[in-house]
Amino acid sequence: MAGTTEFVASFFERLRQAARSRRSLLCVNLDPDPERIAGGAGAALRHCVAVIERTAEHACCFKPNAAFWEQYGPDGWKALIELRQHVPDGVPVLLDAKRGDIGSTMRAYARAIFDVVESDAVTASPYFGDDALTVLTAHADKGIYVVCRSSNPGAGDLQHLETGGQPLYLHVASMAERLNEAGNVGLVVGATAPEEVARVRARSALPFLLPGVGVQGGDLERSVRAAWNGDEASCLVAAGRSILYADDPAHEAAVLQAAINSVLAAV
Amino acid sequence: MAGTTEFVASFFERLRQAARSRRSLLCVNLDPDPERIAGGAGAALRHCVAVIERTAEHACCFKPNAAFWEQYGPDGWKALIELRQHVPDGVPVLLDAKRGDIGSTMRAYARAIFDVVESDAVTASPYFGDDALTVLTAHADKGIYVVCRSSNPGAGDLQHLETGGQPLYLHVASMAERLNEAGNVGLVVGATAPEEVARVRARSALPFLLPGVGVQGGDLERSVRAAWNGDEASCLVAAGRSILYADDPAHEAAVLQAAINSVLAAV
Repeated sequence: MAGTTEFVASFFERLRQAARSRRSLLCVNLDPDPERIAGGAGAALRHCVAVIERTAEHACCFKPNAAFWEQYGPDGWKALIELRQHVPDGVPVLLDAKRGDIGSTMRAYARAIFDVVESDAVTASPYFGDDALTVLTAHADKGIYVVCRSSNPGAGDLQHLETGGQPLYLHVASMAERLNEAGNVGLVVGATAPEEVARVRARSALPFLLPGVGVQGGDLERSVRAAWNGDEASCLVAAGRSILYADDPAHEAAVLQAAINSVLAAV
Repeated sequence: MAGTTEFVASFFERLRQAARSRRSLLCVNLDPDPERIAGGAGAALRHCVAVIERTAEHACCFKPNAAFWEQYGPDGWKALIELRQHVPDGVPVLLDAKRGDIGSTMRAYARAIFDVVESDAVTASPYFGDDALTVLTAHADKGIYVVCRSSNPGAGDLQHLETGGQPLYLHVASMAERLNEAGNVGLVVGATAPEEVARVRARSALPFLLPGVGVQGGDLERSVRAAWNGDEASCLVAAGRSILYADDPAHEAAVLQAAINSVLAAV
């Protein structure tokens, strides 16, 4: 049947190809702060486009967080859509949106994320349960990262509650496994919590997104060691402010790329 | 000190005043569906403005869900901002956004929700824990409804997990209580689950937002009986599609207003 149907590689396959071709597991966050970039949405866009151009050879993914574009209002959404067009072919875009709501609402979010922004992947919140998330996972060619154990100080308030002999975040990992029929589900596991990264990895072979490196103080070495399982999509390391506001973003990205690779070389 | 500082009534006080003056606990959802309203964001705006005008005497709150405006892209956000200006003075606006992320991201969301959209209140997701939510609750004049027990079929997947002798959603209710220092926190509890509404009410006197009435098939009588505690802010009943696409939205809103009031009269 080859040649009769168009084959679209899955998100994770595209991510693997980008990681391989660039020898990088680095995901660069594109989260403009109006207090650090004067000039509104236009300046935020120009700043982030310059960061894309300077870091693209060191990154296998770019991840704008919706909040940082929404804060500029309609111009921010326009800028986000334009930003996406500046990401080079072959490097996927992950919209960090943490959406979670009832099914009919999730269908509207899916249109915004996949049709309007043309994102290749999205982060989603697990609290509403299976039926909310299947609206996203039904998009087989898109990647859906379910928040499992977040990187913030209050993450444990709910996520570490023990239920059925295990913390809630491991239930979320199991739920994500159940939702992975199309092979398009990953997990968000904060690099600030390397022990929890290891516990989730012991439970699940799903690809991980590891936020919290850099300004948040995540433990790069321990979390990469815990997350990596030989699959180039298993350990996507997201860094934002440390690159976005560096005097030389390319240098910062290259340093982080090399730091991740040196951890892998020692595994 | 009277006269030297401007007194801004809290969100819940404004909601109570609106409920009292209109003798209504009805919140009208403003969630346009492009498959039912042809003509893009402009048509969605005109449709929803007409619904506001026809239902304002029967509603104590209007609740646009961000997803339904985001699906139109930048024009949707522009329309959402304009929509807000069409809500009459004295009727608060609640942006249904279910946001939840790390602190720095929540600050950006707060700017989008409170400064850009000028919403009086917002819904938030609890999964990230206390520190994510306090970014919102720090806005003392705004209302923050934390999702406790959602109205969708999969709500129980995580929310009903037992931990420490009680379901997760009751932990969320307790967390919301702790966050209520400024008296600006409420809970989202689905009218599709009247038993859970009663259990949450037994735990907490916080104001409830009750989605799920109408198309979702929520039990109006049982959930209103369970939620109502004599406080006009205790039981905000949200309905959307059944009003938004009615031939006569004013009539539908009046019928629902009366149905709620007749439940209250029998309590």
